[in-house]
Amino acid sequence: MKLGILGDGQLARMLAVAAVPLDIACVALAEGQGQSKITIPERASVSYLNPEDLARFAQQVDAITFETENIPILVLNELKKYSHVFPRPDIIEIAQHRLAEKSLFQSLGIPTAKFYSIKSSEQLKLALKETGYPAILKTCTGGYDGKGQCVIRSAEEAEMAYQSLSQYELILEAFVPFEREVSLIAVRNSTQIKFYPLTENTHQQGILYISKAPYLDSALQEQAEIYLTKLMEHLDYRGVLTIEFFVVKQQLIANEMAPRVHNSGHWTIEGAYTSQFQNQVRAVLDLPLGETQARCPSAMFNFVGTIPEKPWALMQKQSYFHDYGKTARPKRKLGHFTLLANTTQELEQLIADLSPKIQMDVNYE
Amino acid sequence: MKLGILGDGQLARMLAVAAVPLDIACVALAEGQGQSKITIPERASVSYLNPEDLARFAQQVDAITFETENIPILVLNELKKYSHVFPRPDIIEIAQHRLAEKSLFQSLGIPTAKFYSIKSSEQLKLALKETGYPAILKTCTGGYDGKGQCVIRSAEEAEMAYQSLSQYELILEAFVPFEREVSLIAVRNSTQIKFYPLTENTHQQGILYISKAPYLDSALQEQAEIYLTKLMEHLDYRGVLTIEFFVVKQQLIANEMAPRVHNSGHWTIEGAYTSQFQNQVRAVLDLPLGETQARCPSAMFNFVGTIPEKPWALMQKQSYFHDYGKTARPKRKLGHFTLLANTTQELEQLIADLSPKIQMDVNYE
Repeated sequence: MKLGILGDGQLARMLAVAAVPLDIACVALAEGQGQSKITIPERASVSYLNPEDLARFAQQVDAITFETENIPILVLNELKKYSHVFPRPDIIEIAQHRLAEKSLFQSLGIPTAKFYSIKSSEQLKLALKETGYPAILKTCTGGYDGKGQCVIRSAEEAEMAYQSLSQYELILEAFVPFEREVSLIAVRNSTQIKFYPLTENTHQQGILYISKAPYLDSALQEQAEIYLTKLMEHLDYRGVLTIEFFVVKQQLIANEMAPRVHNSGHWTIEGAYTSQFQNQVRAVLDLPLGETQARCPSAMFNFVGTIPEKPWALMQKQSYFHDYGKTARPKRKLGHFTLLANTTQELEQLIADLSPKIQMDVNYE
Repeated sequence: MKLGILGDGQLARMLAVAAVPLDIACVALAEGQGQSKITIPERASVSYLNPEDLARFAQQVDAITFETENIPILVLNELKKYSHVFPRPDIIEIAQHRLAEKSLFQSLGIPTAKFYSIKSSEQLKLALKETGYPAILKTCTGGYDGKGQCVIRSAEEAEMAYQSLSQYELILEAFVPFEREVSLIAVRNSTQIKFYPLTENTHQQGILYISKAPYLDSALQEQAEIYLTKLMEHLDYRGVLTIEFFVVKQQLIANEMAPRVHNSGHWTIEGAYTSQFQNQVRAVLDLPLGETQARCPSAMFNFVGTIPEKPWALMQKQSYFHDYGKTARPKRKLGHFTLLANTTQELEQLIADLSPKIQMDVNYE
């Protein structure tokens, strides 16, 4: 069996590695000469504009998936002529568009922040009367890791925000005064659906910094599973799907979905019985899904912009070092630690011990 | 960093996969066009007889290791001119030769079965007086998985055994009436030495069938660690080293050593904090070693000659399926299961439940 992966970054690499024990070969597709130089078993370079390239790639694999939803739908549809593409392109189209995504959540009874489509400065003013301040103006497409969005705290900021983003299709979202952020990662093949435990996420400047799992709250877990089940069944979804939620007064408010393996699930490589990566491979090829429980309290610690030296990183106790081999750039995810502990308390201690060292060590050179 | 691996079988593949999170690329070296078609990130084909091929391979990597000790010493020495080869070729030479290996054990005070170098039928007769029956006549080089050896139970069998093997250099070993077989896997870099827990091994027809870890016996663990420490320090060893021991009346009798990652350590991929594969990569490149404790009671179940169907295998609970992607042949290791449990009792139950199904399922097609 052979699986095609669109993208050749760290998620593609983790997918390819997870597939090896099952004797499933992966080929990662890079546009042009490939942006990244990270080690992936096999990489194919194509032009997205060349249908022959796409056909050749699609014909050599049993199914195709991707590491990012930011792929032109035309490319996915072209590939779909020759192979299975999971999750389906029409689902990716929804995930690429905040308004379509939030509208879908709403139609399925999945709570969201108040949101409004914004097509003019007038509409923004009216919408802000509903949401109040602060509110967040976002581009409907293309933004991630905090890019393509402005927080609006006043009428003046509203006008500035609108001017800076007015060339895009926009959505205004009410600010959610959340107590914490959690994500639920689910995986579905043609007959099974499985859920990882809720993961608690901490962001810094809009970029995921620390994920901890399992976040033990059986009421929230159950509620999140109901929402993911509704969504996946409605979409006849195949693969890994993540929804990020805000927690407000013990209620879940859906923020966004990611139709792929997700940064908040990296802890599953060592911390869960089956990683999100291997389950994605299994789901896309319609193989039986693996168990999704946490093996122990686990955390993921992202290295953003800088990454510790290898010898130092490999000496840290109860930690697994992942170096994506990428060139350092501000705000770029360069690697992560998975931390494993016997108890939640021990995990918190590990994180507390490590946090200052990481910040120190990543800057010394 | 780049690591060269001699051999392109499953051990090379598991080494290459373990190296990926550390952003260490591996290139597997196959002689000729490569015997195996299994997925390895990168493979180079060379002729062992061509010094230029070897130089080119060695010059592109930071260090070289191997998945089998059955490599011509001349090849290792040639490679050593251009790169680091760990473990060192002179150590491999010892490990390739049962008489040299046993003599080394003896000189370091590591107990072995009685053994005698056999160069004639006369010597065999004399040696058998010392060992009694049964005894085992083995070729000094080249045998593994029960090949190249004859059990001798009588004078007639002695003559037959000698005739069948007389073209080789031979060693006669007394039969050890062992209660169980265990192995200790150790790993050493230039400054650290670490030990995995003892693993209990069950063989069928000379081929490893099931390994279980940790085998909890602190006296034996301590004794085994003393022996491995002596051996590794004497050899100034770098890398993973395994000694297989017989257990007789709570004493360890060394059977043989393997200067590489070992089949009895496959459970460490999911069952230990750091796998033997990643620790081999770290040791050979002189990076800090990872923790070697078992995370939980673990077992490895070899698929020999036949391998279960993937969909069936992936449905088995608490198990990790490893399919090496090799063509089935009698006695060939085609894959393995790692089984994980919360208690030793649960592990035994998993093995008991699985054993008959494996035998049934592997034959139904």
